Amino acid sequence: MKCKRCREKAIVQLRSHNTAFCKPCFVFFFQRSVERAIEREHMFEKHERILVAVSGGKDSLALWDALVDLGYDTEGLYLGLGIGAYSRASEAKARAFADRRGLRLTVVPLDETEDGLGIPTVAAATRRPPCSACGTFKRHHFDRAAFEGGFPVLATGHNLDDEAARLMGNVLHWQLPYLAKQRPVLTPTHPKFVRKVRPLFRTSELESATYAFLRGIEYVVEECPNSHGATQLVYKELLNKLEHQMPGSKLAFVTDFLSRGLPLFQSAPDGGLGECERCGMPAAGELCGYCRLVAEVGRRRTQAVAHS
Amino acid sequence: MKCKRCREKAIVQLRSHNTAFCKPCFVFFFQRSVERAIEREHMFEKHERILVAVSGGKDSLALWDALVDLGYDTEGLYLGLGIGAYSRASEAKARAFADRRGLRLTVVPLDETEDGLGIPTVAAATRRPPCSACGTFKRHHFDRAAFEGGFPVLATGHNLDDEAARLMGNVLHWQLPYLAKQRPVLTPTHPKFVRKVRPLFRTSELESATYAFLRGIEYVVEECPNSHGATQLVYKELLNKLEHQMPGSKLAFVTDFLSRGLPLFQSAPDGGLGECERCGMPAAGELCGYCRLVAEVGRRRTQAVAHS
Repeated sequence: MKCKRCREKAIVQLRSHNTAFCKPCFVFFFQRSVERAIEREHMFEKHERILVAVSGGKDSLALWDALVDLGYDTEGLYLGLGIGAYSRASEAKARAFADRRGLRLTVVPLDETEDGLGIPTVAAATRRPPCSACGTFKRHHFDRAAFEGGFPVLATGHNLDDEAARLMGNVLHWQLPYLAKQRPVLTPTHPKFVRKVRPLFRTSELESATYAFLRGIEYVVEECPNSHGATQLVYKELLNKLEHQMPGSKLAFVTDFLSRGLPLFQSAPDGGLGECERCGMPAAGELCGYCRLVAEVGRRRTQAVAHS
Repeated sequence: MKCKRCREKAIVQLRSHNTAFCKPCFVFFFQRSVERAIEREHMFEKHERILVAVSGGKDSLALWDALVDLGYDTEGLYLGLGIGAYSRASEAKARAFADRRGLRLTVVPLDETEDGLGIPTVAAATRRPPCSACGTFKRHHFDRAAFEGGFPVLATGHNLDDEAARLMGNVLHWQLPYLAKQRPVLTPTHPKFVRKVRPLFRTSELESATYAFLRGIEYVVEECPNSHGATQLVYKELLNKLEHQMPGSKLAFVTDFLSRGLPLFQSAPDGGLGECERCGMPAAGELCGYCRLVAEVGRRRTQAVAHS
């Protein structure tokens, strides 16, 4: 098999694109895909400061690496979720990545924030699935760090597989409000929100893993221990089976949605967001989702003490 | 496991409904489901004559059986597709079903219609997938038989699995015009069309197979030999995997679509249908889809002769 770009020996075949590349051409292809996504979707410009949320996994580190190489002005943000050895290993990978390249990384350990709550504590206290609490906590701290750091843009490493799985979940339940918001660029709906972008939304997990490997990026290979049995993984598995039988299905599902489906789901933009009485971040009610969850942990703990 | 209705020993468990039934209660449940679908979706009334399109398979024969038992005024229509032994076996089952119950069945063998074209001939001549030609031919002859027979309603045996697979295909490619028409009741958009209904749209394949078995209905068990590798089967397999992990997924996917998704896809109803110059049935252009396909067979044959 030959590289479709330079005719040298190919080392990676991309069935979804019906193509194959040698190492340098794949790196070029990957970075070019990221750059095209950024430009076509008007995600950000070279003069803007980008906060990249990194987890220590392949996607976010591949994204950060590509953005740096493409000449964007970036800083990293790592959120310590407090999930034992997994979180410690993830943090070490994120720190090593930044150190080796002389990049600036802010580490926010949830245990040491003023609320002092890691994900396992919240999940146990509220009896919610950890992924649900984790999503709320990440959103809050990402939003807050981007706003307080004066960044106009927050970039996350969500890849095509993530987007396709989320879209599948939203479509299987016809979650109209979520479908209306499933876009690679979310423009701020409140002065304390910043633009949120997903430059890897057209890039598969296979592609970011290959890129990370070829670029010598050391990342956490293990999945989060909480993700076992998560609904998203069920959808990912289904989509992988489909992709295997019909290469290109995931990309078509997501991109056709954006061009044809999304316009139907978009009604009036979010309006009427106030500010959370407790933390001051944007909120639809008196408290934002994060502070409601923190308050719930407090209530449950009080009840537990009262019943003991 | 006990029957949820009468507490006798259950013989069938329905995970999607989180229930189980003994034989008489399952038959009651199945017929009641069909009747509810008919009533809630305003499919037809007891005084109307219903033409039931039967293939000799479990779904359409289970539907016909249930409609007769529920007291509806029905006649059967069997279309001989000309697919060798499969079609001969299917016709025999349909005839035996009708004879045993003293029901009227019209048999239309495609080979003997004025165009004289069976599905294999059309597929071979046009190099189209057989399922595509088959769909066009079925629609045409069903529409025509219903109109010419003076039936106000045509009922087909499409089940929940069929509907969910079709919806999945349409969603994966965001086929907006098809999504707008994916309804269990299609009201006529032309005086020569009749109402088309799918009373089994909430009933799974497992349920219709169980019903057919318990009612002693003899049906063709083999799948159509052309269906091997058909896209619909890929989607069905995916949905079965999902249903296994999350029982009730298929029903929620289809019913949530109807209640929440469909209204967004429905634009203005189909208008401007004229009549086909060749067969007189409704057509968007000069020829209807069926006659375009028949003409294509003619052209291809002429070319083949010219090149030989």
